[in-house]
Amino acid sequence: MTTPDAIPLNDRGLLLGDGLFETMLARDGVIAHLSAHLDRMATSCAVLGLPFDRDAAERAARAAAPAQDRFAIRLTLTAGSGGRGLDRPDAPVVRLFATAAPSSPVIGPATLVVANTRRNEGSPASRLKTLSYLDNVLARAEARAAGADEAVMLNNRGEIACAAAANLFWLADGRLFTPRLDCGVLAGITRARLLAIEPVEEVAVGVEALDRAEAVVLTNSLIGVRPVLRLGDRLLPEHALAARLNAILEI
Amino acid sequence: MTTPDAIPLNDRGLLLGDGLFETMLARDGVIAHLSAHLDRMATSCAVLGLPFDRDAAERAARAAAPAQDRFAIRLTLTAGSGGRGLDRPDAPVVRLFATAAPSSPVIGPATLVVANTRRNEGSPASRLKTLSYLDNVLARAEARAAGADEAVMLNNRGEIACAAAANLFWLADGRLFTPRLDCGVLAGITRARLLAIEPVEEVAVGVEALDRAEAVVLTNSLIGVRPVLRLGDRLLPEHALAARLNAILEI
Repeated sequence: MTTPDAIPLNDRGLLLGDGLFETMLARDGVIAHLSAHLDRMATSCAVLGLPFDRDAAERAARAAAPAQDRFAIRLTLTAGSGGRGLDRPDAPVVRLFATAAPSSPVIGPATLVVANTRRNEGSPASRLKTLSYLDNVLARAEARAAGADEAVMLNNRGEIACAAAANLFWLADGRLFTPRLDCGVLAGITRARLLAIEPVEEVAVGVEALDRAEAVVLTNSLIGVRPVLRLGDRLLPEHALAARLNAILEI
Repeated sequence: MTTPDAIPLNDRGLLLGDGLFETMLARDGVIAHLSAHLDRMATSCAVLGLPFDRDAAERAARAAAPAQDRFAIRLTLTAGSGGRGLDRPDAPVVRLFATAAPSSPVIGPATLVVANTRRNEGSPASRLKTLSYLDNVLARAEARAAGADEAVMLNNRGEIACAAAANLFWLADGRLFTPRLDCGVLAGITRARLLAIEPVEEVAVGVEALDRAEAVVLTNSLIGVRPVLRLGDRLLPEHALAARLNAILEI
């Protein structure tokens, strides 16, 4: 498989957001946790009813990673070409491509606001990294308009879900918390890695839970664990949590 | 503006579902309610914070409509090319294209099932025809898997919203009902036309409201008003509602 130069106008990823993506960190040509990303894409394809050629995806991702420096590798899978309307062809032929973009390490803590745009906890797509990412785009735009870096997204029940492009963890009373997946949470790779090695309570709670947090952090595959400096109007004191979790994750 | 042959890999419509579309009916080269469709796209662009060149959109749509027969014209607007990540460029340059597909009149009534996949009433995108349409794709796939034509989608509060690619109206106790837009309802052109000329009550109600319906119909720009024959296990008796509404709408 070679990455195409362009996508035809009848591609269902383009027309309907019917597809998936992964964002991965490559350093000096090595993609971190590539296997976990391919596993997630395989599982997500199964949820969406799409075929997945893991070898082809791996080859595309590896071929896109430059041999040196630090890059974000994006692997995109669309449901392929189709006819008019919502119904997929009987046997969809997916389209895969991977691209690289320079990715500097993120310096400094993040500022957050709570977005008005909600997560759709009632759709399986809310747990997946899909090509239908407009709600995340809108939430992020709300954050930028408020002078913040990222948005905290709640679901329709008012429970904390995740950020527009990261998962959320917070420390309160010495315990570490993160929202449960069924709150409409993207099943992040870094989130899963943390859950596997650190005691974390997965909860369904309203945004007021963050008022009592001593520390809040964002996680994703590019930034690792990033401390949060400000949440809305509230300044959070400096805290060792992010550095400790980055150390645990060997980031 | 000429319709491109293909879309570059950095298009935000492709990568993030960041964009909009319209589906219109062209008969013998004339696009029905083109002005209403362009109005909706203009309003939707304003909601998403995207620029809109109405003249260019109109030209693209008209150029795509073959001079004879019946076609579905799809006008697609993406947020254009962008860099990595969720943030749009400071001044996005949108991409517009229009395509035509033969569209036979739909014959006969529809069968419906209630989908598990919900509408995201907490996002403004739920009222718009966006390129992030995966929830609709999933709901429609549920309907097909159950041997039905279309899906009734509820929101996260359990209220009726709309079908995967149509709006819903029903008749009960001699009164005509349709879900309120804030239930996460696509603001359909045919829906709006009906509301403008016929007494309809816009409501936020659970799916049990359909149990008492004497007649249920689907509406969209391609099918006009289509009667529903079966909803889940329940057969609906033949009813003149769809024919009456089609006559009112001069479809």
